[in-house]
Amino acid sequence: MPLLVMKFGGTSVADLARIENAAKKVQAEVARGYDVIVIVSAMSGETNKLVGFVEGTSKLHDAREYDAVVASGENVTAGLMALRLQEMDIPARSWQGWQVPINTTSAHSSARFVSIPRTNIDAKFAEGFKVAVVAGFQGVSAEGRITTLGRGGSDTTAVAFAAAFGAERCDIYTDVDGVYTTDPRISPKARKLDRIAFEEMLELASLGAKVLQTRSVELAMRYKVRLRVLSSFEDTDETSGTLVCDEDEIMESKVVSGVAYSRDEAKMTLVRVEDRPGIAAAIFGPLAESGVNVDMIVQNISEHDDPNDKRAYTDMTFSCPTNQVARARKAIEDARDAGKFAYAELVTDTEVAKISVVGIGMRSHAGVAARMFTALAADNINIKVITTSEIKISVLIDRKYMELAVQALHDAFELEKA
Amino acid sequence: MPLLVMKFGGTSVADLARIENAAKKVQAEVARGYDVIVIVSAMSGETNKLVGFVEGTSKLHDAREYDAVVASGENVTAGLMALRLQEMDIPARSWQGWQVPINTTSAHSSARFVSIPRTNIDAKFAEGFKVAVVAGFQGVSAEGRITTLGRGGSDTTAVAFAAAFGAERCDIYTDVDGVYTTDPRISPKARKLDRIAFEEMLELASLGAKVLQTRSVELAMRYKVRLRVLSSFEDTDETSGTLVCDEDEIMESKVVSGVAYSRDEAKMTLVRVEDRPGIAAAIFGPLAESGVNVDMIVQNISEHDDPNDKRAYTDMTFSCPTNQVARARKAIEDARDAGKFAYAELVTDTEVAKISVVGIGMRSHAGVAARMFTALAADNINIKVITTSEIKISVLIDRKYMELAVQALHDAFELEKA
Repeated sequence: MPLLVMKFGGTSVADLARIENAAKKVQAEVARGYDVIVIVSAMSGETNKLVGFVEGTSKLHDAREYDAVVASGENVTAGLMALRLQEMDIPARSWQGWQVPINTTSAHSSARFVSIPRTNIDAKFAEGFKVAVVAGFQGVSAEGRITTLGRGGSDTTAVAFAAAFGAERCDIYTDVDGVYTTDPRISPKARKLDRIAFEEMLELASLGAKVLQTRSVELAMRYKVRLRVLSSFEDTDETSGTLVCDEDEIMESKVVSGVAYSRDEAKMTLVRVEDRPGIAAAIFGPLAESGVNVDMIVQNISEHDDPNDKRAYTDMTFSCPTNQVARARKAIEDARDAGKFAYAELVTDTEVAKISVVGIGMRSHAGVAARMFTALAADNINIKVITTSEIKISVLIDRKYMELAVQALHDAFELEKA
Repeated sequence: MPLLVMKFGGTSVADLARIENAAKKVQAEVARGYDVIVIVSAMSGETNKLVGFVEGTSKLHDAREYDAVVASGENVTAGLMALRLQEMDIPARSWQGWQVPINTTSAHSSARFVSIPRTNIDAKFAEGFKVAVVAGFQGVSAEGRITTLGRGGSDTTAVAFAAAFGAERCDIYTDVDGVYTTDPRISPKARKLDRIAFEEMLELASLGAKVLQTRSVELAMRYKVRLRVLSSFEDTDETSGTLVCDEDEIMESKVVSGVAYSRDEAKMTLVRVEDRPGIAAAIFGPLAESGVNVDMIVQNISEHDDPNDKRAYTDMTFSCPTNQVARARKAIEDARDAGKFAYAELVTDTEVAKISVVGIGMRSHAGVAARMFTALAADNINIKVITTSEIKISVLIDRKYMELAVQALHDAFELEKA
């Protein structure tokens, strides 16, 4: 029997009516002849309520107890979904993490999968069950404690089950109808993509496209799980939404698939750092230890402007989220005070945004960067920092030009055309 | 290390402030040198909310899914209580039913204990943990599904743990400060009892005193678990509340310990039933199958008033809750129509109440019934039905005299005096 994984997020199971609506989508797939593993999140708001209880009880909480409390929201939805499916005469039952079991590491609140044995669920399918409803976001440690995977973990649960059970596809039902060339709130010309490659989705996800969690896309790419993103709130069929798949399945990919942006970026520059081996490690080690999420890193050789000083100096620039600037500054100043390195000045610019163009077609097409820079120049947008990867070019610009830049690049790469 | 079981009901853990208050009571016992097993209910209102979700999803629900959903409320409280105790520097952890494991039968929603192995929790006490916080009301079946014990099941969980772990005492914290000679809302002279025997508590519980669930008292009596009922909302010490214990621990018991009442009783009489062997089984079998909770049963021989009919006839009277009268009537009429028995008339009186006096002292004292009937007669209260047991006398009277009867009997047996 072919098998599908269907995942419903918190807004898709927010109340009994929505659970019924989701169950109808499961019913349609069962009618098409699939066995289905349904992964459910907690009803929207529930997880926040439970997190609030924990934080109201204990600031530096025991993560094992946090997980035991917070995972209960998914258990409720799983039971209700199983009941709703039974009402539709579909043989279904719920599975909590420890019942499958979903074996994870003991890294509570950010656990990773160790194994998902198929034995128990397969035995139920063999008995005639058509649907296994699995509580997402949770697992069980070797010590028999409940673990959670961290926020967005239900997507990851869905992909892991699709990989473990060899599912034909993993459908992620959410409150948007697919993946767009850019954010439709910024560019009305944004177009829904029928297909997108794993690598592109991964870049878009890590650039702030909220549709899929980065880790779930990574896992899907590694195990070649075909992911489909589609809407819970619309009528859907086998062609709805966006398929995230291996690039082999994408016949003709455009040079650029999408334009992503990140609004809350800050740029920090250490001016005149001594340029010697190990200087980057000396700077970014303390930043990592302080939990600063450094994104772009650029190093330029600065001039030898002092004839009496023969040492080489460099300017070291990096970007991080604006709300981590204070922490980053403290980490750098502490390291300097501890004698790890010296610099002339620490310049911070918290008024920048990051714009990226992403596309696997870039690998085989030259001139993408030039086309991007030309488009920005045509609108008098100054580029402050540039970084590139094999399938992505990112720039930092003044935040006030962000929307304009997104629209200009969307036009320049003709993303509105299919 | 001596061990205590402490149980907190839904109103005692209704919010984070109350959980903190309950945790302080646990802290006090730890300070006195006890290891403690804490049994918690769901935050008040939570179980009803979850039951509402289930009933809103499926009328004839799968009890296994019902249990999986409904048990989640206790898991939340257990985690929060463990966190709160950790905040007070008390080594504590939460335990869900399957983690202990609390092995039960597979009778979902009304499961019974099979075994509570001490191994896992004892190992944690040996490691230095002082408190095990156990989610009440739940267990796990041999099939690995979550079970629940039915309403009031957390009391039963507490007693079962006290028995399994040989606890010195099982303290039931609730929203009243003990067991009273009668309902203080009806008789202002009602007095809190320092001690009450298991048998008396059992009669009072089954008569509608809401303090303790009947099943938990039965279990305590069987395993000689000393139960204490006391208030979550007052300062308490080792002498607070009411101790429910073996009668050997009660030095001098009065003839009558309490007066109980039950407001919503109905009396049904089958007039002129043929009196033959098996007639009672023929009547009460169908009632039991229909789920009618028959309480009192009284049978009188009626007269042979027809010289041409030599068969003996009897009147059969029983009581049941008023909201089961329609169901009882249908069961009886269906059985009659099926030819199982015949009767002249079915008389229903839904305006009655049951009053009972309870006391283990009755066993050795004559004249209790006479004193009861005299007290009622002095206030012109007519008795409609009488039943007696070894430690209880119950009567049905017109409901309008209920409060008067309770007060009269409380006075007659001088229950206001210690």
